[in-house]
Amino acid sequence: MEITWQPNPQSPIPLYQQISTYCRQQIQQGNWLVGEKLPAQRQLAQQFGVNRSTIVTALNDLQADGVLISAHGNGTRVASNTWSLALDWHHYLDGQFNANLPTIQTINRLENENYLRLSTGELAPELFPQKLVQAKLRAITPQVTQLNYLEPLGALNLRQALVKRLQHWQIDVQPENILITSGSLQALELISVALLKPGATIYTEAATYLNSLQVFQSAAATLTGIPQDDAGLCYWQLPASTTTQQLLYTIPSFQNPTGSVMTQQRRHDLLQFAEKHQLPIIEDTAYQDLWLETPPPLPLKALDRAGNVLYLGTISKVLAPGLRLGWIVGPTAVIRRLSDVKMQTDYGASSLAQQLLAALLADSAYDDYLTELRQQLRQRRDAALASLKDYLADVATWQVPRGGFYIWLKLKPTINMEQLFQAALKRHILFNPGSIYGADHALRLSFAYASPAAFRRGIAELAELIKRA
Amino acid sequence: MEITWQPNPQSPIPLYQQISTYCRQQIQQGNWLVGEKLPAQRQLAQQFGVNRSTIVTALNDLQADGVLISAHGNGTRVASNTWSLALDWHHYLDGQFNANLPTIQTINRLENENYLRLSTGELAPELFPQKLVQAKLRAITPQVTQLNYLEPLGALNLRQALVKRLQHWQIDVQPENILITSGSLQALELISVALLKPGATIYTEAATYLNSLQVFQSAAATLTGIPQDDAGLCYWQLPASTTTQQLLYTIPSFQNPTGSVMTQQRRHDLLQFAEKHQLPIIEDTAYQDLWLETPPPLPLKALDRAGNVLYLGTISKVLAPGLRLGWIVGPTAVIRRLSDVKMQTDYGASSLAQQLLAALLADSAYDDYLTELRQQLRQRRDAALASLKDYLADVATWQVPRGGFYIWLKLKPTINMEQLFQAALKRHILFNPGSIYGADHALRLSFAYASPAAFRRGIAELAELIKRA
Ligand SMILES: Cc1ncc(COP(=O)(O)O)c(C=O)c1O
Ligand SMILES: Cc1ncc(COP(=O)(O)O)c(C=O)c1O
Repeated sequence: MEITWQPNPQSPIPLYQQISTYCRQQIQQGNWLVGEKLPAQRQLAQQFGVNRSTIVTALNDLQADGVLISAHGNGTRVASNTWSLALDWHHYLDGQFNANLPTIQTINRLENENYLRLSTGELAPELFPQKLVQAKLRAITPQVTQLNYLEPLGALNLRQALVKRLQHWQIDVQPENILITSGSLQALELISVALLKPGATIYTEAATYLNSLQVFQSAAATLTGIPQDDAGLCYWQLPASTTTQQLLYTIPSFQNPTGSVMTQQRRHDLLQFAEKHQLPIIEDTAYQDLWLETPPPLPLKALDRAGNVLYLGTISKVLAPGLRLGWIVGPTAVIRRLSDVKMQTDYGASSLAQQLLAALLADSAYDDYLTELRQQLRQRRDAALASLKDYLADVATWQVPRGGFYIWLKLKPTINMEQLFQAALKRHILFNPGSIYGADHALRLSFAYASPAAFRRGIAELAELIKRA
Repeated sequence: MEITWQPNPQSPIPLYQQISTYCRQQIQQGNWLVGEKLPAQRQLAQQFGVNRSTIVTALNDLQADGVLISAHGNGTRVASNTWSLALDWHHYLDGQFNANLPTIQTINRLENENYLRLSTGELAPELFPQKLVQAKLRAITPQVTQLNYLEPLGALNLRQALVKRLQHWQIDVQPENILITSGSLQALELISVALLKPGATIYTEAATYLNSLQVFQSAAATLTGIPQDDAGLCYWQLPASTTTQQLLYTIPSFQNPTGSVMTQQRRHDLLQFAEKHQLPIIEDTAYQDLWLETPPPLPLKALDRAGNVLYLGTISKVLAPGLRLGWIVGPTAVIRRLSDVKMQTDYGASSLAQQLLAALLADSAYDDYLTELRQQLRQRRDAALASLKDYLADVATWQVPRGGFYIWLKLKPTINMEQLFQAALKRHILFNPGSIYGADHALRLSFAYASPAAFRRGIAELAELIKRA
């Protein structure tokens, strides 16, 4: 229940009465649902900008009229609204798509408030190449002579720029093999509804980004984690093929959340296995360009001779998630099907964003930016590792990430992660507990977002909380 | 099967061999699926830029190797590819989301080629306010200091600008009542997966935009058309309420495809009915701002006292579909649920587009543009009506639209629409047959896209085709 409205102290109507009228309206219009809990009186006083006594008067008034009910020790709630006409939306709030995990809902909500964000999967605003992007925006502005719907696969010049950049990774495709999406998340959503029937199985690394989403689960697919060893996913542990649809989802380079990298040999072996067993692979390369010392092995798609691989790329981690642009690369027959569904769900991605990205990717200044970015991230990683060593060496272990954003911190099993998460929240510190990704006793840290100093401060506090627990 | 590649005449490898190698690769990589039909030889010769005899040699070669098979009179097809490793994607091409209607697939494909577009639901590029948009782009460029993920509901300044503009329509809401979407189409998609369980019923005007989509059908909902009279939807013909979920979808102002407007009295009566029967309403206002003489009656949302109405707005028809921005206005509890699902399917709409639109909507120059646009559309409508009168008065009837883009042409029932559509295609003319929207013997015309001269030419040709049929 967010409240941004405040009563008018200049009005002749008493403040408490303005507030009770406002509350009635909220319920009447269906903004507040039956059974919903109101914030505590202290918080209400703050939000409405009035004294607590005014709140008490207003609430008493509403309770007397049967609009609110107070359950002792359990706060004040909206009463069953037989007195009002309001439509009961309760029957419409749990459609087919699953609700987000509660922890992620909390994180989403608090990320825009003043929290120290130790896990955020974004580049810090100060790493954004303002000059480069602004120059490109100025350069494309005269070309913005219309902004109509685009062709189903996305802007041709953007797909052409991607064809060139994919060649650097030895992926040889045509513009018809590429569908532009609103980020890689939408690529996953499209795959789930366009390619899958209920009952499909998605194999993943045991701890994976996919566990933090409900995309596949909402399409009645099942996620099944497969163990990893030092070389990557242990594909030979995949269950014998069944008659239902199955897909493998993997993040071979700088995995989210573990930071791991699949070796070149394992990539070859996995592909051979996939060819033999007619297993489609979704290869998510979100962090691939963000190597810190040396480039990772070639992507699976570069080794793919039989069209097994759907390759997902995104500009979110490398430059700007706010552009909402990603791409799926695959056999044209699959791309056509995915694009048909995309056209039916949002008519394509923003053409303005596509024009800007096409211009950026075609410019070698973008490569200079990447080089500079890698250097910055390397420094941040090293600073983060130093902070961990200083504060957490005796209670946790971690691997040195060779790219991407994340450090995967494994804690001693005696620590209750849910309590740690709540205790950190109280100190205005946010982190992503491993449970989101399907792993207990671990947590994901990101050195990309918080400044090295803030990160250090957060780790110091976390260490204190851990040692108390 | 799109072919953009051409053989290299400079190469020592014979052209026919280059072509057969290319075809093998396409099949091997899964771009061409088993059973897919190749274009005719003449067309292949054109696409590959070679003589027809070269094509014949290449195809013979591929048939001899069992890669292609030719069925007499039924063209050449990709043979069952036991010779190749290619993954058989066939099992993955009919997931839960329905394929687009074949007619719409054809229209989507051909719209980007050189066709005269008599029905397109977009403003003509020459109506785009280049100067205004470019000036605003320049104005926001210095503020593009980062492009990170946004808050779940969308940019606050855009929602604030919308709150103000909604007030002009006497809709009084807070920013928390608004969710920014990637166009109104996505709003419909979100409603279908976030609010509905399988088996829901959506009532609509009998001929409706919704029939041209598969959004609700793919979520296992049923569309049921309700007749209209001169005043709008005959709500009293809605079946008695059932236990399943039900929703009413309506486009009260300048409906797509019929152009009709629901009267003020009908709006009041409909809302009263909805309140009484606890019936949620989706009000699609895509064309509401595009009145040509006088504004339409107040939107249902302005009359909504009990939170029954989810109001959909979009910038697509008024300014720029390529921005991909729309908004849902409704009770906060519903907005929160929709935004939770949006966050899980694409993490929000493009922030660059949102910044641009926020700046545009906050400027009175946008209102001047709207005034000018209405005048331009009025002229186009009048020219279109004159063309219809000159060429089609004896075979068709129509109403004068008071806003929006469309003229709904009712033809004599003896005309076969499918044949007419195909005959028009042959002359490189595209129109939307009424069947897409659930009505035979009618077709949708748009005066917004084709220039008045091109429209006149197209109508003259259409008249000729109709008279022949
Ligand atoms: C592995 C991986 N894939 C995909 C995404 C989705 O990013 P976007 O939708 O912004 O492209 C993320 C974001 O966290 C990610 O970590
Ligand atoms: C009535 C109506 N609603 C919604 C839309 C979807 O437009 P968009 O997704 O571009 O906002 C259209 C487009 O044709 C329409 O005619």
